[in-house]
Amino acid sequence: MLSINAQRLNDTLQSLGRIGETQGGMQRIAFSPADVEGREFVKSLMTEAGMSVRVDAAGNVIARKVDSEVGLPAIGMGSHTDTVPKGGKYDGALGVLGAIECVQTLKDAGMTTRHPIEVLVYTNEEGTQFRRWLYGSRAMAGLMEDDDLTCVDELGVSIGERLKDIGGDVSRISEAVRTPDEFSAYLELHIEQGPVLHQTGIAIGDVTAITGRIGMNVSVRGFANHAGTTPMGHRRDALMAATHVIQSVNRIATDEEMCRVGTVGMVEVSPNAENVIPGRVDISVEFRDETTERIRQAADRFREICQRLCQHWDVTIDIEEIGLASPAPMHDEIRAFIRDSARKLGFSLSSLPSGAGHDAQSMAEITRAGMIFVPSVNGISHSPHEYTSPEDCTNGVNVLLQTLLTLDSNLD
Amino acid sequence: MLSINAQRLNDTLQSLGRIGETQGGMQRIAFSPADVEGREFVKSLMTEAGMSVRVDAAGNVIARKVDSEVGLPAIGMGSHTDTVPKGGKYDGALGVLGAIECVQTLKDAGMTTRHPIEVLVYTNEEGTQFRRWLYGSRAMAGLMEDDDLTCVDELGVSIGERLKDIGGDVSRISEAVRTPDEFSAYLELHIEQGPVLHQTGIAIGDVTAITGRIGMNVSVRGFANHAGTTPMGHRRDALMAATHVIQSVNRIATDEEMCRVGTVGMVEVSPNAENVIPGRVDISVEFRDETTERIRQAADRFREICQRLCQHWDVTIDIEEIGLASPAPMHDEIRAFIRDSARKLGFSLSSLPSGAGHDAQSMAEITRAGMIFVPSVNGISHSPHEYTSPEDCTNGVNVLLQTLLTLDSNLD
Repeated sequence: MLSINAQRLNDTLQSLGRIGETQGGMQRIAFSPADVEGREFVKSLMTEAGMSVRVDAAGNVIARKVDSEVGLPAIGMGSHTDTVPKGGKYDGALGVLGAIECVQTLKDAGMTTRHPIEVLVYTNEEGTQFRRWLYGSRAMAGLMEDDDLTCVDELGVSIGERLKDIGGDVSRISEAVRTPDEFSAYLELHIEQGPVLHQTGIAIGDVTAITGRIGMNVSVRGFANHAGTTPMGHRRDALMAATHVIQSVNRIATDEEMCRVGTVGMVEVSPNAENVIPGRVDISVEFRDETTERIRQAADRFREICQRLCQHWDVTIDIEEIGLASPAPMHDEIRAFIRDSARKLGFSLSSLPSGAGHDAQSMAEITRAGMIFVPSVNGISHSPHEYTSPEDCTNGVNVLLQTLLTLDSNLD
Repeated sequence: MLSINAQRLNDTLQSLGRIGETQGGMQRIAFSPADVEGREFVKSLMTEAGMSVRVDAAGNVIARKVDSEVGLPAIGMGSHTDTVPKGGKYDGALGVLGAIECVQTLKDAGMTTRHPIEVLVYTNEEGTQFRRWLYGSRAMAGLMEDDDLTCVDELGVSIGERLKDIGGDVSRISEAVRTPDEFSAYLELHIEQGPVLHQTGIAIGDVTAITGRIGMNVSVRGFANHAGTTPMGHRRDALMAATHVIQSVNRIATDEEMCRVGTVGMVEVSPNAENVIPGRVDISVEFRDETTERIRQAADRFREICQRLCQHWDVTIDIEEIGLASPAPMHDEIRAFIRDSARKLGFSLSSLPSGAGHDAQSMAEITRAGMIFVPSVNGISHSPHEYTSPEDCTNGVNVLLQTLLTLDSNLD
């Protein structure tokens, strides 16, 4: 069976990992000089692998290789090369360099494919700049919103200016849209960013779905008063009520198992003075799951519990939903091909959802999409401590290559 | 029985209440022009009541009236005229103006006392400037600490400069110390600042003790991780553990009744991002009670509970004690005179602790001290909504006068 060049893969990963490397981790924030340098490095690898390279209006790098004239739609593979501040070397990079390695391996073996192959590097996946996640892949899937075209960063520079720096053009961004007839399928290899594969010793993850997420701002209002002079029985302590609100989020995900995960990440207490009973507490709440139904069910249950807490603690609780990102199930047919490839290569295999968002969720809007996960040591990501062993990286890319070849043989 | 002039008391309260009055409440912050103006107003009333007025090295205003030559120690009465930002008209002011009204009433009636009478107005009781509470009364009781003499405000102005503005002299501050042989007793009338008297419809409170307080900084450390990719079972969520820490403070005061009140007023979550599981939570904890033993007991119980929570939630919890202010019991003999006076005047009466700190706790270090409380409407204080009715104010000052006269007859 055809195998990729493990040494070369590791070399390119380490080379890209030196671009934007700092003491505190990777700094290839979208549109930064390091991001531009990373993109240039990747383009050179694409050219070397025999692909023609272009940049679309959204700044996405698109490399294409056409071996046959049968007129089939492309099989896409890709990910991103931008990082969060103080990020790691594998998040995004593995999916891009793995895809290029597959094409280079085919070239080296003198093998051709029935389908055109595209390697896609999406702009600003992390959304660190402009706080607009999955920017390039959403542009490609026709999912742009008005704000996406007009947003301005902290320095007052518009997205249009920033796109120009990487070869894009915001005024023509609709030209970045791709249509379902252009793709047969899409594959994305990525580190898990969670602990499941590493802790269970499984080599390959078949992603069932990219989980959806509901976000809520919850405001608990009681009455601020003197911590010394106000007896316990006379208090309307917003923080005491808030602790029960926070615990209910955990309980809904853990005991009641109504959704996969639930988290309170932000808390703001007012007036936040050591000798004043808190009058107001604002918290962020999120629930994630693979189905919208279960996310809704968790959110409804949360509202119910808050209503009861209002009465018990004599507080008011306002819940504002700030967005529901629908789950993106991966395509059953593609998933089956991924599992078959992993089995043929003799790897241990597990099916699991992705808790984080990925460009594949945009691509799932226009074609059959599948994702392959490899283990993250201790589940750590978005951190300089992010690590996936060379062996696990190689295994993942070999599954990507096998799946690509099977898709190429079997799909129209 | 001799009664004070209710109209005059109300007039002086309203007059002082116009000095530093703003749309948002009283602003007579210690050392400010409004504070100085308030002190001058009070001095003029003292002089009118036939007292000689001086300012000590700590800036305390001390008015004295000597009617007899028997050489007895003084009976002191007093409080403060500085306010918190956006404070009320009654906190402190009632104790000062009530004491002057007693002396004026005696003068009008041509009555003399065996003991000299002193009316004391203490510097910076609220500690808004320099964050050093009970400044003047601590100086008088010999309780100054090194920092009290060297502290500097946000504008870079030293306490020495500020004291100069009100007639004090930091280099001679030890001369402000008074000794036990100078006082027979000390009385302070104050609004309750809590809801107990108002809610039970009781006119007069006999203060059992000024409660002590232990303050703690508590730091809960788990592990920050991605809210989407980290399964519930793999989390070390510092916030989840912290909610149980916070609830234990409430439970110790409420269910277990180990101390009078317990409060968490401050919470800081890190990294405080909506999609990151909190890695660290810092909270302030305080317990207050009338005995050091019960405060200690509550703190010990709290440590026990935290230890169990560490294991259960796989977090570490560090507890740093940042100070124990011992309770100041009011003197039994003085309390009995206060209760007798209230009963003689036909007022409903209740014994209760003071949750807030007062200058009387400093004075209790050098003489027999007692405090009289009157109702605060809805228990609101340190607020423009602070209110005590003219009738309740008058009742309080009449109890102060009766107690003064009884002490004068009965004490040596």
